[in-house]
Amino acid sequence: MNLDKLQNWLISTNNDVAYISDPISINYFTGYSMDPHERIFALIAFKDKPAFIFAPELNVEEAKNSAWDGDVYGYLDHENPWAKIADLVNQRVGKPNNIAIEKSHLSVDRLEQLRIAFPDSSFTNNVSPFVAEARLRKTPEEVEQLKAAGAEADFAFQIGFNALRNGVTERYVAGQIDYQLKLQKGVMHTSFETIVQAGTNAANPHLGPTMNKIEPNELVLFDLGTMHNGYASDSSRTVAYGEPTAKEKEIYEVDREAQQAAIEAAKPGITASELDAVARNIITKAGYGEYFIHRLGHGIGMNVHEFPQIMEGNDVVLEEGMCFSIEPGIYIPNVAGVRIEDCGVVTKNGFETFTKTSKELKYIPVKD
Amino acid sequence: MNLDKLQNWLISTNNDVAYISDPISINYFTGYSMDPHERIFALIAFKDKPAFIFAPELNVEEAKNSAWDGDVYGYLDHENPWAKIADLVNQRVGKPNNIAIEKSHLSVDRLEQLRIAFPDSSFTNNVSPFVAEARLRKTPEEVEQLKAAGAEADFAFQIGFNALRNGVTERYVAGQIDYQLKLQKGVMHTSFETIVQAGTNAANPHLGPTMNKIEPNELVLFDLGTMHNGYASDSSRTVAYGEPTAKEKEIYEVDREAQQAAIEAAKPGITASELDAVARNIITKAGYGEYFIHRLGHGIGMNVHEFPQIMEGNDVVLEEGMCFSIEPGIYIPNVAGVRIEDCGVVTKNGFETFTKTSKELKYIPVKD
Repeated sequence: MNLDKLQNWLISTNNDVAYISDPISINYFTGYSMDPHERIFALIAFKDKPAFIFAPELNVEEAKNSAWDGDVYGYLDHENPWAKIADLVNQRVGKPNNIAIEKSHLSVDRLEQLRIAFPDSSFTNNVSPFVAEARLRKTPEEVEQLKAAGAEADFAFQIGFNALRNGVTERYVAGQIDYQLKLQKGVMHTSFETIVQAGTNAANPHLGPTMNKIEPNELVLFDLGTMHNGYASDSSRTVAYGEPTAKEKEIYEVDREAQQAAIEAAKPGITASELDAVARNIITKAGYGEYFIHRLGHGIGMNVHEFPQIMEGNDVVLEEGMCFSIEPGIYIPNVAGVRIEDCGVVTKNGFETFTKTSKELKYIPVKD
Repeated sequence: MNLDKLQNWLISTNNDVAYISDPISINYFTGYSMDPHERIFALIAFKDKPAFIFAPELNVEEAKNSAWDGDVYGYLDHENPWAKIADLVNQRVGKPNNIAIEKSHLSVDRLEQLRIAFPDSSFTNNVSPFVAEARLRKTPEEVEQLKAAGAEADFAFQIGFNALRNGVTERYVAGQIDYQLKLQKGVMHTSFETIVQAGTNAANPHLGPTMNKIEPNELVLFDLGTMHNGYASDSSRTVAYGEPTAKEKEIYEVDREAQQAAIEAAKPGITASELDAVARNIITKAGYGEYFIHRLGHGIGMNVHEFPQIMEGNDVVLEEGMCFSIEPGIYIPNVAGVRIEDCGVVTKNGFETFTKTSKELKYIPVKD
């Protein structure tokens, strides 16, 4: 079980306590998923005692009825959660010497509160790298969830492609996708805001869907994903609505070639940096290097962006079970933007994508 | 302008630089709104030089085309953002003595990176309390946005009430609300996940909508909100689908009385703690005090939960322009849950709610 890994880490690093504050990490270790907003929510694990969940009183019943079968303690809004946490920890293990924290998640003021509650403890140890490492290679069960999320993204593309017609807004098309995902697939959470970008809007890679209207003869970029049992999908396709310009077709084909080459090169033994270069070199050679303004990809799992980062300077060697996106993009301001993205898993000999929607440039007939 | 307030604070507190990292704070000071996910995004303000935005290269074009008219600098994924930030700051002001940070937002590892990039600077000063204070009293323009968001919440209730029928799931009803908000009102973001809870599910205040089916003769609790031009709404109603039990009607009326009494008591001069007690005393006197397990309310503005907190122990004196929720709830495990919530603004003599949906117990006829 994942919690055993954490306890083993505490033993091997000689930390008495781990204070886990990232809700995604808590879900990974306990099976209980929740958004505490601004309230305090933590998993507190020990070298040699059972872990417990600390949550707002509002969520205690829910946590007790969840997959988590350990203790759950709550606090009321007017109570001092830090004093309560200190009492609970002291009851279990006395005064801990070391409390490891998730430095990538814990805010500076919450650390200050913990220091006040545990004046004799050291907080220098960081559990974040261990958590990232534990989640880096996915189990076959996790890959199944990621594939199921990928199938939902494929479904979403079909809804989006069918919704294109003259004069509807990007926002309307994005709304259709979200609604049909909910209605037909029971998807309650997309993994990020569904992006639909027509024409030159696609040159701003992260611009949310606007009231911009779909017009004939332009490219339309979709970037979308779902959450499936706590695992994310994330995929992009760019399609032609009517007849795009020769320039647009050219950058599409360059991007597609770069993406395909990277998918074929992804396998155990290559580094993240080398894989980034496979795609980047093709785009650079075609004269568009300056318009590929982001890394080739990012890890994916319970978080839509996690490790490994597929980028220049990251010398991590890819291994079976690592899951990430391959998503070269070319963004020419005021001209056009193209991105093609699949997430997938490194297999014994290669890379298997979670999304299957064709990447041949799709021409969608103009309709009123 | 809001940025002037920040610069005045830097002067009066003798801080050379403010490193603002919360995207909502950045939006408040610059008018540029963005979700950077795991990438680095900051507003860097100075005592005596123009502020600039630092963002992922992906977002630089968008930021330049936004309401923000100052400088924007970007970084590529493989670059070290901290070194770039240090260069930019050093070019403007040399080596700063003090860099104030948002301790309520900045993570411990990012502070460690800043310390490396600015080895001669002190990071002990916290700008978070100033930002919270600046946003505490809303301008008339802000109140207009909050009212518009409240009208969207009222619309959402009507959609939800109309969607109730035998055998549909909570999740279906929540989906209808989100879809019709998007389609008919252009609402792209709810302010949190739309909550629909039927029967005993409502006794778990934050449980998301489940596949639980709506059955005749139970209470159904709605808690929902929208984002309107960067401002949030948040409101709850509990309705009867068919004929509830006498017990359910009783707790509904106790909760309604408590909510109405608090709305009537809210005005300049009362403290947050006193206002909480107005509602809590009524619920306690009726014998349900142990089932009201959260504060009476929370501030609302650009964030769905902000200051002031309306709770025991908070002695802040309410003033004109403060905006918050009044939302007593009674949650009896395995029996029923009721919450009635309006957000509103403290006026010269009282409190004006942003949502207007009736709070008389609404009976929705059972239908197949």
